Amino acid sequence: MIYFDNSATTRPYEEVVQTFASVSRQFFANPSSLHSKGGEAERLLNKARQNIASYLGAEPSEVIFTSGGTEGNNIAIKGTALAHKERGMHLITTMAEHASVYETFHYLETIGYSVTYLPVYPNGQISLEDLEKSITNQTTLVSILHVNNETGVIQPVEDIGKILAAHPKIVYHVDHVQGVGKVPLGLKGANIDLCTISGHKFHGLKGTGALFVRNGITLSPLFTGGEQEGRVRAGTENVAGIVSLAKAMRMTLDEAKEKREMLQEIQAYLMDALSSVEGIKINTPVNGTAPHILNFSVEGIKPEVFIHTLEEKDIFVSTRSACSSKKAGPSRVLLSMGVNESLASSAIRISLSFDNTINEAEMAVNAIKSAVKNLREVMR
Amino acid sequence: MIYFDNSATTRPYEEVVQTFASVSRQFFANPSSLHSKGGEAERLLNKARQNIASYLGAEPSEVIFTSGGTEGNNIAIKGTALAHKERGMHLITTMAEHASVYETFHYLETIGYSVTYLPVYPNGQISLEDLEKSITNQTTLVSILHVNNETGVIQPVEDIGKILAAHPKIVYHVDHVQGVGKVPLGLKGANIDLCTISGHKFHGLKGTGALFVRNGITLSPLFTGGEQEGRVRAGTENVAGIVSLAKAMRMTLDEAKEKREMLQEIQAYLMDALSSVEGIKINTPVNGTAPHILNFSVEGIKPEVFIHTLEEKDIFVSTRSACSSKKAGPSRVLLSMGVNESLASSAIRISLSFDNTINEAEMAVNAIKSAVKNLREVMR
Ligand SMILES: Cc1ncc(COP(=O)(O)O)c(C=O)c1O
Ligand SMILES: Cc1ncc(COP(=O)(O)O)c(C=O)c1O
Repeated sequence: MIYFDNSATTRPYEEVVQTFASVSRQFFANPSSLHSKGGEAERLLNKARQNIASYLGAEPSEVIFTSGGTEGNNIAIKGTALAHKERGMHLITTMAEHASVYETFHYLETIGYSVTYLPVYPNGQISLEDLEKSITNQTTLVSILHVNNETGVIQPVEDIGKILAAHPKIVYHVDHVQGVGKVPLGLKGANIDLCTISGHKFHGLKGTGALFVRNGITLSPLFTGGEQEGRVRAGTENVAGIVSLAKAMRMTLDEAKEKREMLQEIQAYLMDALSSVEGIKINTPVNGTAPHILNFSVEGIKPEVFIHTLEEKDIFVSTRSACSSKKAGPSRVLLSMGVNESLASSAIRISLSFDNTINEAEMAVNAIKSAVKNLREVMR
Repeated sequence: MIYFDNSATTRPYEEVVQTFASVSRQFFANPSSLHSKGGEAERLLNKARQNIASYLGAEPSEVIFTSGGTEGNNIAIKGTALAHKERGMHLITTMAEHASVYETFHYLETIGYSVTYLPVYPNGQISLEDLEKSITNQTTLVSILHVNNETGVIQPVEDIGKILAAHPKIVYHVDHVQGVGKVPLGLKGANIDLCTISGHKFHGLKGTGALFVRNGITLSPLFTGGEQEGRVRAGTENVAGIVSLAKAMRMTLDEAKEKREMLQEIQAYLMDALSSVEGIKINTPVNGTAPHILNFSVEGIKPEVFIHTLEEKDIFVSTRSACSSKKAGPSRVLLSMGVNESLASSAIRISLSFDNTINEAEMAVNAIKSAVKNLREVMR
């Protein structure tokens, strides 16, 4: 199997699965229980919190655990908008966000907030000028996607942070879900207040994630109830999931040191090889992108058909973000970059992980070439 | 170890841990991905949904998966209140709910809803008359705890359902978290619209749960984003967790058939043996309670001290609900039943599972007797 759908989800590390299982067996007590079994579970939880904080360059008190990226984005965005309603009801994001951000802002519009969706340009990035112009004295939140999940485009989150430094009342959220282990991000240096990560995108388990909440930032919780997670997220903590998240993050960051360059090489090879194929148009810009995503369109071919053709050769790619994959029609993200409707409707995403090899990429290129050729003959 | 804190959390079944691990390894793809690996994961998800639906006597389309009981309760309550705001802003619950319900209603009060908190009487139950009287034409939701997590008291959820049948516009939510496998509940017979369950309370994994949403009931989602879970709960599904939840539920219901009576016997033995101990006052009523919880107060002794004394004998009990255990002061639930402040401040909860034995109960009674004797001598 050549698994090239790593932006949808990754295969969990074997060590992560084992950690989850052994913590579930041995430390099953409720970390809030007063007895020593509870205390042991609580210590594991705190250790995982310390570790994740240190990987993020944060304090342990700045990490809260979630069930994944969608939850993290929802807590960050709704939590900020609701907490600061009195201060203002204007919010800023971009046209090229993941659904868990984009739809959340649409929801907030239905309850009275006004939202500026910054356009992105053909390179996939917003303009810093547009951002500066959109800020009003009613603005309480700017939410920006670090690495786009369809195209790999990296937004200039550090530069945005510099601009926002002049507006200390605006909360700055970054969706870092696709960035972990792929594109380093210094939270404090970039002046970020809130940052979402999701375990299953870096060989951790589904149902695990974390939200960085800079000390001093107030959020209105989505789950009210018990006093867990600094009252920002009530509910019995998934201790085994949390410990496994710390493990996955450490392993990913370790692997990244050796293997990030390899990803870049595979991506460059794919980009080069595929751009010369007749009928293929590369959508991922050459510069300013993460090393693990390559988006291209196959003119005139339905992407579902293309995916199933590759699948017959045991190669697994996708159309766009998995959670929108069942939607018909063109990709909102590609349209926002100025890709035309027909190409935006026939996009294919290859997304890599450290498990992939250049050899797999070569096999995939051959398979893609013959698929394009055959399908285009059929269509003629 | 004698583990008597099963209402805080249970030890997961070994088969459940193994199921989680093997699904995580073999079916790691994103169930929303269009390729066949995604399709395989989706089929597992659907199978788990069918199974849980059948255990609940529901349709598969009536089950959505959550990260636990707190999330389920929050989706049910906020989701209903927000969805039906135009129809009315009056909500009804009880004084003796779990924090994830009680605090959620408090939150809704802060944003303009009015809430009736029905009193409970010394038997721990609400009065049906009180309920009928509290209903107005602005009422949109009634939320009732099936089995109280501190005392084991069962609310008359079927009778409440009969009353609500005359008010088809009121949504009826039941927190069944402590009931699964302990006190059978027919959702359709009781006219229930929404019902929360949580995996880790019945030997499943933390981070797993489900919400029954009767067909036709509209909820405003807490997580917006992708189109998963009928758009009520966006986010990549925790497939392994979901499959393990179905497994835990089946095993629990199977075990319950043989072992529910045994729980009743252990509880009756404990109640009998402890009620004759000087200084102990039993708070769990003799009738109308679940078979796995026994709450008692040890006059004049701080519950933390008592817990640690038992712990030295490898016996693990708790004070109240785990997620409130770090709060000082009397138990709100006991106060609401008319227990005086001093007794409500020195309550101990024993909570059983099918793993416990009468032999353990005997050892615990001896340990409790000598702990009470010694601690009371020290206090004198
Ligand atoms: C950029 C981005 N943000 C958020 C999410 C949502 O994360 P999760 O699937 O953990 O809910 C995803 C993936 O689906 C993503 O790619
Ligand atoms: C009655 C009741 N409802 C809800 C919950 C919350 O469930 P969870 O711990 O899965 O968030 C609990 C347990 O903590 C409970 O006992």
